[in-house]
Amino acid sequence: MKKDAQVKLIETATLLFAQKGFNAVSIRELARTANVNSALISYYFGGKEGLYQEVLEEQFILIAQMLRRLEESPPSSPTEAIIRYANNISAIHEQRPYLTRFILSELMNPTPCCEAVVKKYISCIFGFLHTTFEEGVAKGEFKPDLDHDFATVSLAGIMNFFFIAKPIFQGFTSSSEKTGEEYTAQALNTFLNGILRRKDHE
Amino acid sequence: MKKDAQVKLIETATLLFAQKGFNAVSIRELARTANVNSALISYYFGGKEGLYQEVLEEQFILIAQMLRRLEESPPSSPTEAIIRYANNISAIHEQRPYLTRFILSELMNPTPCCEAVVKKYISCIFGFLHTTFEEGVAKGEFKPDLDHDFATVSLAGIMNFFFIAKPIFQGFTSSSEKTGEEYTAQALNTFLNGILRRKDHE
Repeated sequence: MKKDAQVKLIETATLLFAQKGFNAVSIRELARTANVNSALISYYFGGKEGLYQEVLEEQFILIAQMLRRLEESPPSSPTEAIIRYANNISAIHEQRPYLTRFILSELMNPTPCCEAVVKKYISCIFGFLHTTFEEGVAKGEFKPDLDHDFATVSLAGIMNFFFIAKPIFQGFTSSSEKTGEEYTAQALNTFLNGILRRKDHE
Repeated sequence: MKKDAQVKLIETATLLFAQKGFNAVSIRELARTANVNSALISYYFGGKEGLYQEVLEEQFILIAQMLRRLEESPPSSPTEAIIRYANNISAIHEQRPYLTRFILSELMNPTPCCEAVVKKYISCIFGFLHTTFEEGVAKGEFKPDLDHDFATVSLAGIMNFFFIAKPIFQGFTSSSEKTGEEYTAQALNTFLNGILRRKDHE
């Protein structure tokens, strides 16, 4: 069971690191904002890096769970795999609103956690989708000329970009009440229509 | 005609701002790296902010040109509009490899230039694509239930994500020689297949 100060530090650090990035947050600021003694950061996490890694692991916990569920009860078809991925990603962004900020920040200014956490999980998702496209093409479910790498990047792009670019797009859309769930439904539909092999003569 | 020191300062500032972000670069560092007297930054650009705005405008110059060309010789159909957008975006990323870094950095930590430059151009692109989808649906070229806002975000996502996520994906793909141009061709194909109204009985 985590102690109060530990929980408080993780909550505070999530907000501060998300807003300012790893380098711009000091141990002093973390301790002051969380209202705990700064020595506890070393005691519980071994320092700022350790606290940051804990925060980052917590951001990816739902992705880890998704990957575990996909392994334990595998999708019945490549198409179902893509549907489950898309719906999970939408729900994960809903529950972890800072996740894209952490990933983008690591993309632009990688810390040692980029390899240890960010790339670890993203490579697992990439592997899962890559296998899905490979199988889907082999089984004749997807178009035969689909490049597996490109298809993986396309799917990740169409599914995540809404959540990445929200702060910029928000000002332009006619309705601000449009949800990630509605976006995901249309994007998934467009993507699947784009890659499914058409059975013209059925 | 720009003076040598001006050109030197813009080149140096492009690299430094792209790598470190606006806040982490000092006038001192800019002047020292460009090997010019720091007073020239005020003289030519009115300060660090002015220099940064000049750099950012230069990053968006190809987008401004694309928008002008699309206005001067409008696409003959909504589908052609999307093809021209996609091919332009791919070429722009090729010629402005730091453009995504500048946009992401403004997304995460907006400077006053976010409104003045980044949002100005992105809202023009958004408007162009939005009108394209509206027309395409009205003319029966695209699926009738397409939400114009979502379609705009989907297209921007599938077209730009490859260039945004390159540093992360590079490690996972089987071949590092795959080009943005090849990616764009498949992504465009997938997207158009996904939104075009099928003429089943032709």
